Amino acid sequence: MFVTLDKLFEPEKVAVVGASRQEGKTGHEVFDNLLHDFEGEVVPVNPKAEEVHGVKAEDEIPEGTDLAVIVVPAKIVPEVIYDCGKKDVEAAIVISAGFSETGKEQLEEHIVHKAEQNDIKLLGPNVLGVINTKNSMNASFASKIPEKGDIAFMSQSGAFCTAILDYAKAEHIGFNNFVSLGNKAMLNEVDLLKYWRNTDTGTILSYTEGIENGREFIEEAKKTSKDTPIVMVKSGRTSKGGHAASSHTGSIAGSYQAYKAAFRKTGIIEAESNRELLEFGRAFDYQPLPEGDNVAILTNAGGPGVITTDEISERGLELAELEMSTKRSLRDVLPEESEPVNPLDVIGDAGHQRYKDALEHVLADENVDSVIVILTPQANTEIKKTAKTVVKASRNTDKTVLASFMGEQDVQKGIDILEKEEVPDFQDPMDAVKTLKAMRNYREFLERGETFKQFEYDKEKADKAIDNIRDYEFKENLLEAYGFDLALTSIAESPLDAQEAAANVGYPVVLKVNSPEIKHKTDIGGVKTGLETKKEVKEAFHEIVNNVHLNASASQLEGVQVQEQLDGLEIALGMKRDPQFGPMIMVGLGGIYIEVLRDVSFGIAPITEEEAEKMIDELQAHELFEAARGQKHNLEPVKDAIIKLGDLALEHDSIQEIDLNPAILKDKNFYVADIVIETK
Amino acid sequence: MFVTLDKLFEPEKVAVVGASRQEGKTGHEVFDNLLHDFEGEVVPVNPKAEEVHGVKAEDEIPEGTDLAVIVVPAKIVPEVIYDCGKKDVEAAIVISAGFSETGKEQLEEHIVHKAEQNDIKLLGPNVLGVINTKNSMNASFASKIPEKGDIAFMSQSGAFCTAILDYAKAEHIGFNNFVSLGNKAMLNEVDLLKYWRNTDTGTILSYTEGIENGREFIEEAKKTSKDTPIVMVKSGRTSKGGHAASSHTGSIAGSYQAYKAAFRKTGIIEAESNRELLEFGRAFDYQPLPEGDNVAILTNAGGPGVITTDEISERGLELAELEMSTKRSLRDVLPEESEPVNPLDVIGDAGHQRYKDALEHVLADENVDSVIVILTPQANTEIKKTAKTVVKASRNTDKTVLASFMGEQDVQKGIDILEKEEVPDFQDPMDAVKTLKAMRNYREFLERGETFKQFEYDKEKADKAIDNIRDYEFKENLLEAYGFDLALTSIAESPLDAQEAAANVGYPVVLKVNSPEIKHKTDIGGVKTGLETKKEVKEAFHEIVNNVHLNASASQLEGVQVQEQLDGLEIALGMKRDPQFGPMIMVGLGGIYIEVLRDVSFGIAPITEEEAEKMIDELQAHELFEAARGQKHNLEPVKDAIIKLGDLALEHDSIQEIDLNPAILKDKNFYVADIVIETK
Repeated sequence: MFVTLDKLFEPEKVAVVGASRQEGKTGHEVFDNLLHDFEGEVVPVNPKAEEVHGVKAEDEIPEGTDLAVIVVPAKIVPEVIYDCGKKDVEAAIVISAGFSETGKEQLEEHIVHKAEQNDIKLLGPNVLGVINTKNSMNASFASKIPEKGDIAFMSQSGAFCTAILDYAKAEHIGFNNFVSLGNKAMLNEVDLLKYWRNTDTGTILSYTEGIENGREFIEEAKKTSKDTPIVMVKSGRTSKGGHAASSHTGSIAGSYQAYKAAFRKTGIIEAESNRELLEFGRAFDYQPLPEGDNVAILTNAGGPGVITTDEISERGLELAELEMSTKRSLRDVLPEESEPVNPLDVIGDAGHQRYKDALEHVLADENVDSVIVILTPQANTEIKKTAKTVVKASRNTDKTVLASFMGEQDVQKGIDILEKEEVPDFQDPMDAVKTLKAMRNYREFLERGETFKQFEYDKEKADKAIDNIRDYEFKENLLEAYGFDLALTSIAESPLDAQEAAANVGYPVVLKVNSPEIKHKTDIGGVKTGLETKKEVKEAFHEIVNNVHLNASASQLEGVQVQEQLDGLEIALGMKRDPQFGPMIMVGLGGIYIEVLRDVSFGIAPITEEEAEKMIDELQAHELFEAARGQKHNLEPVKDAIIKLGDLALEHDSIQEIDLNPAILKDKNFYVADIVIETK
Repeated sequence: MFVTLDKLFEPEKVAVVGASRQEGKTGHEVFDNLLHDFEGEVVPVNPKAEEVHGVKAEDEIPEGTDLAVIVVPAKIVPEVIYDCGKKDVEAAIVISAGFSETGKEQLEEHIVHKAEQNDIKLLGPNVLGVINTKNSMNASFASKIPEKGDIAFMSQSGAFCTAILDYAKAEHIGFNNFVSLGNKAMLNEVDLLKYWRNTDTGTILSYTEGIENGREFIEEAKKTSKDTPIVMVKSGRTSKGGHAASSHTGSIAGSYQAYKAAFRKTGIIEAESNRELLEFGRAFDYQPLPEGDNVAILTNAGGPGVITTDEISERGLELAELEMSTKRSLRDVLPEESEPVNPLDVIGDAGHQRYKDALEHVLADENVDSVIVILTPQANTEIKKTAKTVVKASRNTDKTVLASFMGEQDVQKGIDILEKEEVPDFQDPMDAVKTLKAMRNYREFLERGETFKQFEYDKEKADKAIDNIRDYEFKENLLEAYGFDLALTSIAESPLDAQEAAANVGYPVVLKVNSPEIKHKTDIGGVKTGLETKKEVKEAFHEIVNNVHLNASASQLEGVQVQEQLDGLEIALGMKRDPQFGPMIMVGLGGIYIEVLRDVSFGIAPITEEEAEKMIDELQAHELFEAARGQKHNLEPVKDAIIKLGDLALEHDSIQEIDLNPAILKDKNFYVADIVIETK
């Protein structure tokens, strides 16, 4: 279903239900704001008033109303929605609070039900409102309307809206739509993403505490962000923050790892603070994406050039190597003391002309993809003229130009020019580098392919295995059905059995306790490795049985696994079903390191080849996966295993968690050596 | 020697040598700046002028001059210094450029030599100058003088000074001294640290590209920071940045790891950007240090409260748990919808009175050590009154109070009040959290003990070992002389030898190539582990010899080491002599992980018990050191080994690098299993 929100943003006739004559009341502010500038018709609805602000008040919603803005006490809202239905109103903004956020879930469900019955698009309840600068509609109780522009903003927190509006005004950031989402009883992020990708919105900014319909969100966000960058602050990242979020909005916070995986999958750029949200948003909106990672720094002060260089290195970007021809041209325009290298120090006495000449040459250099122009206010610095120079240079290039005019009082006149003319300025050049990194990540998303690798699975074998999943053999069967290789394993009931099994799988062998209840076998002394002889196998068998009795007496012992000992890189693979986003696949270094180093990365199924590769790349230990001290590994089987595990989880809802730890990568082979599966 | 810089900062008579009548010239600006407001006498020295700015010009430096400010061309500076000497001038600021920064090292050495001969304290050359607000002296070519205060600032970059001055003015940050260090030919960070700790300076801020006299710096910085917090931006952190730094100022950048270790040792707080430098500096100067880690958040908006909570968790601080009595008191002053928990949401319609009541109760709570007050500009928000409320509350408490008035235009009137009245305001509440973390780190430094553990070393054995250090046996001897335990090792010349040695050390054994030239034995197939039988030992011997011939034919093979195989936690210890700071001791996870995960930490010798402990704590893998999957380790021997390695390096200058990798921690024992030593 495609939701059109035209009547929410571009109504011709708006009724303010609860418009009040009493100053300071929300119903007064909202009506007042709408009266200002809005191009359409505005009608106050208030049975107790003759007129509001000189406009004749109606007793009920008039015919022909497109949008109802509702500011009445919560308990009256259902009645108003009912009235909306009668009058064929297509959209409603419920500003009123007192619903699920205060425990009144039923009342909220009630109004949603009524809205659905009447085909009304309902925003809220508990919102600040909606601003559309295109028709100058301020259907909110925010006193300010931002400058016109093509950034769209949505926020689950109304107060976040007011703070952002205040920043935006000071920094000349233009918006088209400004939406407070409130309790998201009906309309939510997904609806707005769909709407905005069909408008001329240039960049979407969002403050989000939680997403409820994760899979649909991924689908729609991915579609949107292929054209329009989405920058998002996700709050509730930590468990403490998550707790505060759920008590604040009643939304169930998905784990932050799942969000990070969802952001990577959809190309959403994560901002860590409100400052970053605006800084990233401005840069995406004002400037072209850099075509590569090579950054040039142009500065009238060495020190800031050095710390910016540090940051470029640390963020994984590159300091551009200037071409010989550029260096020669720079020689001609720079004073003798200035060395024509990157970072390019045009020296403290540089006026606007020297900035202009240097900037032109640097931007013409083929090795340069983006430029950060740094200015410190020194004796001969021409702040305003240099700002204009930077603006002009930015207009004449398709490369990314960012600025950092360092200081606050004197440099403000330059910053104003930069901001009005769409060259993002950063108080600190470090933030310019962070922003370039964010732009790079988005470019990578746009360039990244989406290859869905198809494997043949044995569905019948899998289904049968699921029915008997408690037994280790059937866990093995399930993985075999999905094309996994397994370490050779037999179950032995007695020392004699074990010796026979060892002879079959071949020495050296590993013995492990076999019990569905024991998850961490090593902890209780349930694993013996490097067994070379019959005697050692027998002793190990007895020791394991003994340790189980001592340390896990409540667990049912179902024999001992006898397994070939494989020497290679120990990898951990896993799956956890996230309540919002579905199966999350995890990969990391196996063995004891996984718990201590927590060097793991996550992806949401189905996983493409490119995502599987990126998951491995993101690991701190990724070099180990490729080669460590001469051992070469072929990563293909690990990538395949990640993809297969995702498919397995998508096709078998009953499985909640899977642990394959360790799985051994040995040359080009990848063997699962232990399996834990949790079902619901 | 105690350097007194009184005449530099508090001269009674100042001569400006090169004072110029021509506007725009540095010699004009400096003289003009000094004429304004300065309480002492100012004399222009210019043989070509009758008068400058109405003041009679002198041909040479007049008698009784305390401070000479020199703005003449570089080549004339030596003459001027000579003249200073004749007139008993005690301090000189050489603003003139054109010395070592442009390759003129000799000229620079020349003026230093002249200054030393005449007992002149020389600042520069190549500086912006010095500002002292206490006597209103602006002996610089910066047009601005900051507000009075007790923060001192020094910077290697003059341009950094001008940017900081511009921020400071806008944000009402008060300074006492403002010093541009330039080329640091004579006076440097160490002299200023010594001077400031004997004045009433409250906080010291510094921008540094490199320290030349590392050991003295550590000594003096530690003494200073016990009374006065030092916040420092260190540029040239990465190798790219480091390169830019050394080409910029000609200072040899020490490795960043060494600086980090030096900062920890001295309690210096590192800031990563100019914004952090000012934010940290302001907080240290305005507010008391928090006594503990428990942070309360007071906000009129849920969203910002949640992201601030996230940041508190991520920075390792604690969200304060409010006392029952506080919750009860809050119930009385807050509306029903507001839950009395931390983060405390006083709800969007909070006026200043509600902020006041809530803040009082929260500050009275014994579980609260610091408070971040967040305000977003909503319809009923009383911005100025709330700012005054926060100021008053901060004055009445000895707890740390920080604010984040979110927004930029409307909230500015509140921010102005906060800043003038010394409650630090942060554009982003995340930065308030980072600042609390920095304050916590400084408190930890103040509370940290300094225990120098004394060991008995066998100096004679050590000296003898040093003389023969090329041989593995003597490397072992050296470590034994410093009280290290070694894995039992014999050198075998033949397979038969090896078998005998194996019988002596006890099976299982490890065989390793013995050759001083081969550093990474595993890479060339020079290590065989887990050898259980005579046969395996013989085969391993042959294989190693073979591999050396194949992969390292140029290396001299001096037999094969036969070593007992120790199973335990593999740790890497190391030492590298840093050119600035001397011996740096490294600890990390051993084996192949050290190279890939680079999870290591550094300390500068001599290392105290507390530092050794902190070095281990800082490792990501520190949990592994303590306990992993049931294996318990006693860390004492690792800490001792770190300390001993530091002592060894301090006492033997000829040793440049040491690698003890792996060293095996097994229960309470710590055995070195491999030794690489590089001498100069």
